[in-house]
Amino acid sequence: MASRSIHLAVIPGDGIGPEVVAEGLKVLDAVAPASGLSFERTSYDLGAARWHRTGETLPDSVLEELRGQDAILLGAVGDPGVPSGVLERGLLLRARFELDHYVNLRPVKLFPGVSTPLAGVDTGDIDMVVVREGTEGPYAGVGGVLRKGTPHEVATQESVNTAYGVERVVRYAFEQAAARPRRKLTLVHKDNVLTFAGDLYQRVLKRVGEEYPQVTTDYCHVDAATMFFVNQPGRFDVVVTDNLFGDIITDIGAAIAGGIGLAASGNINPDGTAPSMFEPVHGSAPDIAGQGKADPTATILSVVMLLDHLGATDAARRVERAVSDDLAERAGQGARTTAQIGDAIAKRVSG
Amino acid sequence: MASRSIHLAVIPGDGIGPEVVAEGLKVLDAVAPASGLSFERTSYDLGAARWHRTGETLPDSVLEELRGQDAILLGAVGDPGVPSGVLERGLLLRARFELDHYVNLRPVKLFPGVSTPLAGVDTGDIDMVVVREGTEGPYAGVGGVLRKGTPHEVATQESVNTAYGVERVVRYAFEQAAARPRRKLTLVHKDNVLTFAGDLYQRVLKRVGEEYPQVTTDYCHVDAATMFFVNQPGRFDVVVTDNLFGDIITDIGAAIAGGIGLAASGNINPDGTAPSMFEPVHGSAPDIAGQGKADPTATILSVVMLLDHLGATDAARRVERAVSDDLAERAGQGARTTAQIGDAIAKRVSG
Ligand SMILES: CC(C)[C@H](C(=O)O)[C@@H](O)C(=O)O
Ligand SMILES: CC(C)[C@H](C(=O)O)[C@@H](O)C(=O)O
Repeated sequence: MASRSIHLAVIPGDGIGPEVVAEGLKVLDAVAPASGLSFERTSYDLGAARWHRTGETLPDSVLEELRGQDAILLGAVGDPGVPSGVLERGLLLRARFELDHYVNLRPVKLFPGVSTPLAGVDTGDIDMVVVREGTEGPYAGVGGVLRKGTPHEVATQESVNTAYGVERVVRYAFEQAAARPRRKLTLVHKDNVLTFAGDLYQRVLKRVGEEYPQVTTDYCHVDAATMFFVNQPGRFDVVVTDNLFGDIITDIGAAIAGGIGLAASGNINPDGTAPSMFEPVHGSAPDIAGQGKADPTATILSVVMLLDHLGATDAARRVERAVSDDLAERAGQGARTTAQIGDAIAKRVSG
Repeated sequence: MASRSIHLAVIPGDGIGPEVVAEGLKVLDAVAPASGLSFERTSYDLGAARWHRTGETLPDSVLEELRGQDAILLGAVGDPGVPSGVLERGLLLRARFELDHYVNLRPVKLFPGVSTPLAGVDTGDIDMVVVREGTEGPYAGVGGVLRKGTPHEVATQESVNTAYGVERVVRYAFEQAAARPRRKLTLVHKDNVLTFAGDLYQRVLKRVGEEYPQVTTDYCHVDAATMFFVNQPGRFDVVVTDNLFGDIITDIGAAIAGGIGLAASGNINPDGTAPSMFEPVHGSAPDIAGQGKADPTATILSVVMLLDHLGATDAARRVERAVSDDLAERAGQGARTTAQIGDAIAKRVSG
């Protein structure tokens, strides 16, 4: 079978980033022969180490190279020596904005055998997808500071929301909902306080919803939504929300679905005008870096999302099943290293 | 013993508001003789019902009357017939802003015998106080909409943060932390993305912290904080955070500490330039209104906060103990009505 060649950019990053990415690539190699895809990988040295060395976060020239790739796999970036915000705004968010990743897709699913901090919750009770807007809202980077360091300082942050930006992410969320058995879409916002932005989301939901009569919609304030994530997670199927609320609720999502070691994400450009970027939700965890303690599962599940995005659906299901089977057997086992988990999943994929 | 006379404004509101307020007042009456306080109550008709009748939310004349009171007890306002935001911005937030309630104080405590949705968590594992800023941030009401209803619509919301506003709430939080056994204060923000506002909070925390060497401080991104609320709630003692993050995390706080039926709050003006306002965190719950199903405990615990605020510490402890004893015995009992719960707690207070 002739295989389609995929140019894959790999950004291992800092801390546990390179360790988990190595396992993600191991699994990708294991499934590639059966996927109809072959991967040409280019590794990019970006993150805290580069910033310490050169002061660069995401140079224009690198950004242009990334644009020429078909997809990006990112580990994690950051270390305590970099001031907060430098890599986040200069690298991660810059990539998401410049590559127009207007969908930040985050499944929240409790796999069989995985333990959750919630009492009385079973597999099947937690199975949702959060569609987080990725290119505007409070993340726009608009704001400033006046009279810094004086008693009269004023610091502002502006959430910028556009009909263009809201409509495209809401439409994507309806498509997701329409393709799932429960066909339910919940808008999460705070329209009783953030009245302008909330009203825009509400009107777009209503208007686009007319094209999807088969999808049930409802609305939940973000504060109530966080509560329901904890005490009624089964209420959610697909959730659409803004950039900041999505950031927050997907971390609770990770917590209830077995922890940050399992949470995958895709920064998606659904129009294909630039490569999409897949990354575990977790950070670089410098405290456990280099010890083989990191769980690569979130990265491997991000590889599943990458495969789905590239249309290699069968390969995606194969890796997902391997992860699911591995998770189901973890309870009985002792601690394994990062590489042992990667090996075990890769073996299931090939086997 | 001569008693100090307190002018108490009561805003029962809508839905279950009047039902839970009645029980709060019942308990207040029961403890008053022993409190050194006597209460002169004035009831204010505000909320959805008034808005439907007159279009008014919080008229200037009523606001002026409220200013003359010593404290306010509020039930809940709102019904599905009022457009989202009208009562929130026009009544609740208007009162908080005009009366300069710069501290929104929300204890998150798991009482003995109360069941939590978290597995393996015991009483004592959850005992924190959230100090939420109440008069600025994303709640400022600054923002607008351009080209509404067109494909070119832009909707903005601005978070406005001042050194003045941040310093006073941070200072209050340090005072709280210094008075508690663990003496720990955690700033919750998102300073890697909301860099201007986050940096202001960080600098103020550091500067004010020099005056409180006995208090340990740390920092947690809001997304990580929500995760820790679920899987390591014992990490938190006092939390200080902005208006929107505080809104969100205190709902998770309510969820983990036994639900919204138990969550109390105080909108506090620590300088005493205007009356403080005490209210349950829950809303008007129109679906269960008038059926005697609402749990008045959150309101009764708000009365505890009211008593503490007025300096009636012994009376506050007495009501708190009564609530705690009542909660400890609930597990074994069948469902009780709103009034039965109020009666039981009032009886313990007097007995
Ligand atoms: C690191 C940070 C900028 C990022 C975000 O806020 O989006 C992270 O928390 C995430 O969720 O991917
Ligand atoms: C009703 C709403 C305006 C309010 C808020 O957002 O502060 C509520 O959620 C609360 O927490 O008291």
